[in-house]
Amino acid sequence: MPEPRPIAILGGTGPAGTGLALRWARAGETIIIGSRDPQRAQETAEKMRQRASTTKISGAENPAACAASDLLVLTVPFEGQAALLKQLKPAIRPGSILIDATVALAASVVGRASRTLGLWQGSAAQQAAELVPKGVSVVAAFHNLSAELLNGDDPLDCDVIVCGDDAEANQIARALAARIPGVRAIDGGKLENARILEQITALLIGLNLRHKGHGGIRITGLPPQAYK
Amino acid sequence: MPEPRPIAILGGTGPAGTGLALRWARAGETIIIGSRDPQRAQETAEKMRQRASTTKISGAENPAACAASDLLVLTVPFEGQAALLKQLKPAIRPGSILIDATVALAASVVGRASRTLGLWQGSAAQQAAELVPKGVSVVAAFHNLSAELLNGDDPLDCDVIVCGDDAEANQIARALAARIPGVRAIDGGKLENARILEQITALLIGLNLRHKGHGGIRITGLPPQAYK
Repeated sequence: MPEPRPIAILGGTGPAGTGLALRWARAGETIIIGSRDPQRAQETAEKMRQRASTTKISGAENPAACAASDLLVLTVPFEGQAALLKQLKPAIRPGSILIDATVALAASVVGRASRTLGLWQGSAAQQAAELVPKGVSVVAAFHNLSAELLNGDDPLDCDVIVCGDDAEANQIARALAARIPGVRAIDGGKLENARILEQITALLIGLNLRHKGHGGIRITGLPPQAYK
Repeated sequence: MPEPRPIAILGGTGPAGTGLALRWARAGETIIIGSRDPQRAQETAEKMRQRASTTKISGAENPAACAASDLLVLTVPFEGQAALLKQLKPAIRPGSILIDATVALAASVVGRASRTLGLWQGSAAQQAAELVPKGVSVVAAFHNLSAELLNGDDPLDCDVIVCGDDAEANQIARALAARIPGVRAIDGGKLENARILEQITALLIGLNLRHKGHGGIRITGLPPQAYK
């Protein structure tokens, strides 16, 4: 049997990164938590190994995490996204898949987390696609999962819409989404649609502030084969 | 007992208008279907009276519908929205509520219905708010309900997020949403958030084309009192 493909979660010490790491590790995946601070990566990995009762979570500096995996998930605040991708450009392996969960919240500059910035490329994911080396496929997903719920133990009650121009990469991201208990994965088409996924996060943040919850979305009305 | 407040559905002979008319009429509301063509309004009203087994649906020219009601619902394609509101400005009664369901789909100009236009005001609803007489409250809602499902007989499996700056108008729109079987109404905050509701429609149209369905959304993870 081949060694399973590890998942490198870049900027993975924040709540979104640890939540995904926890869920995927429990599902049997091998995880590398990347951070700019190797000490912090190690400590977070140790904590997550205990929480997930697994040995298959390690920590590494972001470039080392890229070197060790061709399946990358980016979970950084928008204000760190571009600088990190520029730094990692030499480290990202040709043919890698980068799953981007970045949302350009207005709070990155000034203002509310329930508003987004307008980006020339249309979305943070499309901006990422401009910054990665040629031949790396960018897929947008996981924007709309509550980090707090991901870090808990209950199944989620959310769908993950995946947008990306590379059908195989899109399919791989959907398979990862479906490994999170309670999550259904839906092909949302081209990467340009990521802008809507990102906007939905801002809407959910606004709903959370207003109604004191941990909002997510379900897509209704599609045939069963759409949720695969 | 006071006469119940009729609902005037402006541009109401299309599928979104007839679907809302059907559901509200069945719930006991009095409906005026507005159209630029009085003949068409009458014919649609007659057809809807039969479908809903009620006498409480009438048809009128759009300005007459405005004159007869202070609770207005706008269900026109984006390309007709501004011209209709300019025409109706003298007819809209002071203190009216206008519930806008318009989505600025790119297909209004050229291109795909899964893309939206960028509007200076931020959304079609905010554009509407610039075009109505002073003192008229614009609320954004009902963008994300499938017209085909609305025109059917089964309960819907969708939430309606309502955005508007006037708390009372927002509440009235939520009460109307909740009269549609299966629909839960959620306060989505300020009118500026309408842009996200409108984008979600484009996403759902894309999902419908891709997966052959009648997509809608549910918001999960909010406390029960959020759905009122």
